[in-house]
Amino acid sequence: MITLKEICRLLDGDLQGNGEIGIQGVNSLERAGAGEIAFLVKSNIDLDGIRAAALIVARNSGIAYPNLVYVDQPYLAFAKLLEHFHPAPQFSPGISERARVDPEARLGKNVRLGAFAYIGAGAVIGDDTEIHSGAVVYPGAEVGHSCLIYANVVIREGVTLGNNCIIHAGVVIGADGFGFTRDAEGIPRKIPQKGKVVIGDYCEIGANSCIDRSTIEETRLEDHVKLDNLVQVGHNCRIGAGTTISALTGISGSVDVGRNVVMGGQVGIADHVSIADGTMIAGKTGVSGHIKKRGIVAGNPHMEIRTWRRAYSLLRNLDDYVDRIRDLERKLKELEER
Amino acid sequence: MITLKEICRLLDGDLQGNGEIGIQGVNSLERAGAGEIAFLVKSNIDLDGIRAAALIVARNSGIAYPNLVYVDQPYLAFAKLLEHFHPAPQFSPGISERARVDPEARLGKNVRLGAFAYIGAGAVIGDDTEIHSGAVVYPGAEVGHSCLIYANVVIREGVTLGNNCIIHAGVVIGADGFGFTRDAEGIPRKIPQKGKVVIGDYCEIGANSCIDRSTIEETRLEDHVKLDNLVQVGHNCRIGAGTTISALTGISGSVDVGRNVVMGGQVGIADHVSIADGTMIAGKTGVSGHIKKRGIVAGNPHMEIRTWRRAYSLLRNLDDYVDRIRDLERKLKELEER
Amino acid sequence: MITLKEICRLLDGDLQGNGEIGIQGVNSLERAGAGEIAFLVKSNIDLDGIRAAALIVARNSGIAYPNLVYVDQPYLAFAKLLEHFHPAPQFSPGISERARVDPEARLGKNVRLGAFAYIGAGAVIGDDTEIHSGAVVYPGAEVGHSCLIYANVVIREGVTLGNNCIIHAGVVIGADGFGFTRDAEGIPRKIPQKGKVVIGDYCEIGANSCIDRSTIEETRLEDHVKLDNLVQVGHNCRIGAGTTISALTGISGSVDVGRNVVMGGQVGIADHVSIADGTMIAGKTGVSGHIKKRGIVAGNPHMEIRTWRRAYSLLRNLDDYVDRIRDLERKLKELEER
Repeated sequence: MITLKEICRLLDGDLQGNGEIGIQGVNSLERAGAGEIAFLVKSNIDLDGIRAAALIVARNSGIAYPNLVYVDQPYLAFAKLLEHFHPAPQFSPGISERARVDPEARLGKNVRLGAFAYIGAGAVIGDDTEIHSGAVVYPGAEVGHSCLIYANVVIREGVTLGNNCIIHAGVVIGADGFGFTRDAEGIPRKIPQKGKVVIGDYCEIGANSCIDRSTIEETRLEDHVKLDNLVQVGHNCRIGAGTTISALTGISGSVDVGRNVVMGGQVGIADHVSIADGTMIAGKTGVSGHIKKRGIVAGNPHMEIRTWRRAYSLLRNLDDYVDRIRDLERKLKELEER
Repeated sequence: MITLKEICRLLDGDLQGNGEIGIQGVNSLERAGAGEIAFLVKSNIDLDGIRAAALIVARNSGIAYPNLVYVDQPYLAFAKLLEHFHPAPQFSPGISERARVDPEARLGKNVRLGAFAYIGAGAVIGDDTEIHSGAVVYPGAEVGHSCLIYANVVIREGVTLGNNCIIHAGVVIGADGFGFTRDAEGIPRKIPQKGKVVIGDYCEIGANSCIDRSTIEETRLEDHVKLDNLVQVGHNCRIGAGTTISALTGISGSVDVGRNVVMGGQVGIADHVSIADGTMIAGKTGVSGHIKKRGIVAGNPHMEIRTWRRAYSLLRNLDDYVDRIRDLERKLKELEER
Repeated sequence: MITLKEICRLLDGDLQGNGEIGIQGVNSLERAGAGEIAFLVKSNIDLDGIRAAALIVARNSGIAYPNLVYVDQPYLAFAKLLEHFHPAPQFSPGISERARVDPEARLGKNVRLGAFAYIGAGAVIGDDTEIHSGAVVYPGAEVGHSCLIYANVVIREGVTLGNNCIIHAGVVIGADGFGFTRDAEGIPRKIPQKGKVVIGDYCEIGANSCIDRSTIEETRLEDHVKLDNLVQVGHNCRIGAGTTISALTGISGSVDVGRNVVMGGQVGIADHVSIADGTMIAGKTGVSGHIKKRGIVAGNPHMEIRTWRRAYSLLRNLDDYVDRIRDLERKLKELEER
C-alpha cells in the first residue's frame, strides 16, 4: 500500500485530487478497481464505467477525473509503477550446487547460477548476472554485468554480451551462419563460420530467437536493440542502436540495419541490404533492396506504404477494371464499325 | 496380434468379410500389406494394387473390398488403432535422482521427472504428469494432471497449465511480452511484463513455440487449442477453444481469436484484432483488421478467399491488360483523328 | 605461420608471386592486412586499397595483383584455409561425470558428452560423435559417427541420424507431426504420431529448427541437406539430397522436395506438394501446388519469377492504369455523343 501522494513523488508527477488515498496496485484501464491506479495514453477515451482510484495522464491532456497524476510520459510512468508493485522474482540465490562451472571460468561478484547451468572454460560472467537452469555458456564466451539469462539459453564460444541484457529462454547466440558453396559435383560444402557475435548493452532477445556468428568478422547488435521471439539474425549483420524487431522476422546475411528502425513481425530482409535509420517496416514486408531514406514501407517486394495500400485496394477490384477494359473494347469496336 | 472381429469391437464398428483374420498392425493405404489394416477417408480412391488385409471405411461409403470395418469416423478409428498397436513409450519411471525438485515444490502422485529436470519453489505438478529431461518449471508455476512435458521445455513463473496437455520439446511458455515505449531521447524502454499465461485442458503446443505472458492481465489459451511448431502467441491474447494454428504463424499482442478457428502456416495477425468463431485463414495470410463474420480469408492484407484467388489470377496476366489499355488508347486516338 | 608456397600445396593451387612470404591468417577482402590472405569470387572488383598479402582467385580470372594463388574454386579453398587457421574448438573431452547415460545405451569409441547431456535406454551413439551440454537423446534413437550435436538439442525416440551431421543448438528432431481430426462435436482429436525421422549423412540443421516425425511411415532428409535456423519440416516429408533451405521456411506435411532445390527464407510449401529437382524458390514464396519442371519461382501463390517481377512492377503503377481506363471511358463517351 502506498498513498497517491507518494506515487506522485515516485513518478515525478503533479497531483490533482486526493493525495491521501491508498493505492494497492496497478491495472489496465478496464479492469482497475478501488485501490488501483491505471494509465491513459490516448485522451479521447470514454471514461464511463471506469472505476480506477486514480489515473496517470499526460500533462497536456484535458482529462476530467477525480484523481489524476500528471506526468511527461504516462507509459514510462506506468512501467515504473509495475516494477514497484511487482518486483522481479528472485531466482536461484547464489550458485546452485548442481550447476557446473569449469575451473577456468571467471565469475564476477554476486553471480547467480541455476541448477544444470553450464559455464565453460575461459568464459567470463560479469557481476550481478543471473543465469538460469539449463543455460549453456560455451568456453570463452563473455557475458557482461547485470544480465538476466533465462533457462536453456545457449551462448556459443566467441560471443560477447554487453551489460544489462535480458536473454529469454531458448535463445541461441552464435550458432554457425548459413554458409555453403557447391563443389564441382554440385554438393553443398560448409564454409566454416569462425567469426563472432558482439551484443551491446541493454539489449533484449526474445524466446527461441537466433543470432548467427559471422564467417570471419562479427555479427553486431548495438545498444538497446530489442528482438521479439523467434527472430533470425543472419551472419555478418549489423543491427543499429535502438532498433526493435517483431516476432518471426528474418534478417539474411550481411544486412546493415540502421538505428531506431522499427520492424513488424514476419518481415524478411534480403542479404547485403542496408536500411536507413528510423525506417519503419510493416509486418510481412519483403525488403529486397536498399532503403536509403527513412519512411514507411510495406509489401513484397517492398514499396512506400501509401503506394502499397493504394495498389492493394485496387487489386481487390481488379475484376471490375478488367470488365471495364472489355466494355471499352466492345464499345470501341462498335464505334469503329459505324 | 488381434483378430479383425476384435478390432471391430474396439472401434465400435460393423464387420464385412472374415472376422477371424489376424491383424498385426496399421499402415498407410499404399504401404499396408498382409496382416495390416489401413483406412480410407475418400471413397473415390482406386483400390488397384492395395494389399491391406482389411480397410476401415465410413458407414455410408460404397467401397468394395474383401474385408471392411464400417465406422462413423474412419480417421478417429485409425487414431485409436495407432494407440493400440503403438502404445506410448514409457520414459523415466519415477523421479530421476538427477532431477532437481525444490523442497517447496508440490508434486502429485505418480509424477515422473527426467534427469536434469528442474522444478522451482512453490511450483505445483499434478498427478500422473511426466516431465522430461532438461525441462524447467519456474517457481510458482502450476501444471495440471496427466500432462506430458517434453525435454527442454521452459515454463515461467505465473503460468498455469491445465490437465491432459502435451507440450513439445523446446517450447517456452510465459516469456515476457514484447512491450517497449520510447523515452524522451527515443530510446526503447522495457514495459515490465507482470501478467500470467493460463492454458486450458487438452491443449497441445508444438516444438519451439512461444506463448508470452501478459503485461498485467493474462494470455489465455482455452481448452483443446492445438499449436504447431514455431508458433508465436503475443501477450494479452485469447485463443478460443478448439482453435488450431499451423507452424510459423505469429499472433501479435491483444489479439482475440474465436473458437474453432483454423489457421494455416505463416499467418500473421495484427495487434488488437478480433477474429470470429470458425474463421478459416489460409497460409501466409496477413490479417490486418477484425474478422467479424466466419468465412475463409487469404492474402495480405486479407480478403475473402475467392476475391483473392480471382485477383491473383488476374495479376498474373496484368501485362496483357496493360497491353489492351495501350491498344485502346491508340485506336481511340485514331478514331478521334478521323 | 605458414608460407604462401605451403598454402599453394594445401589448396592444390598455382602460385604467382613470392611464395616465401608468411601468412598468419585469412580475412575478408576489405579487412585483410599484411600477413593475411583473402579470396575473390568476382573478377570485376576494384582492388584499390586492398592490402592483403595475397589473394586466392579462380584460374581463369584476369586479376592483376602481386601475390596470387590460382585454384579451381576459390570459395572452397577459402573454406579449407578457414579450417586450417581456426581449427574447431575442442569441447568436453571424454564423457562428463555430470552427463547421464542410461546403462542400456550404446556409445561408440571416442564419444564426448557434455555436462547434463542425457542419453536414453537403447540409444546408440556412433564413434567420434560429440554431444554438448543439455542435449537429450531419447530412448532408442540412433546417432551416426562423427556427428556434432550442440547444446540443448532434442532427438526423440524413433529418430535415426546419419554420419558427419551437425545439429545446432535448440533443434528438435522427431516431435509429433501436427495431426488432428475433429470428432462429431467438432473438437480436434490427436492422431498419434508413431512414425520415424531418418536423416542422411552430412546434413546440417540450423538452430531451433524442427523436423517432425511421421504419422506411421517416415520423414526423410537425404544426404547433404542443409537447413538454416528456425525451419519447420512437417511430418511425412522427403527432402532430396543436396537441398538447402533458408531460415523461417515452413514445409507442410507429406511434401516431396527434390534434390538440390534451393529455398530462400520464409518460404511456405502447402501439404502434399511435390517439387522438381533443382527448383529455386525465392524468399517469401508460397508454393500452393506441384512444381513439375525446374525453374525459379516467386510470389504467393507462386509463379515463374519473371511473371512475378513484371506483375509487381505493374502493381506499383496500378493507379495510373486505372486513371487511363477512366480517361478512355470519358473520351469514348465523348466520341459516342458526337
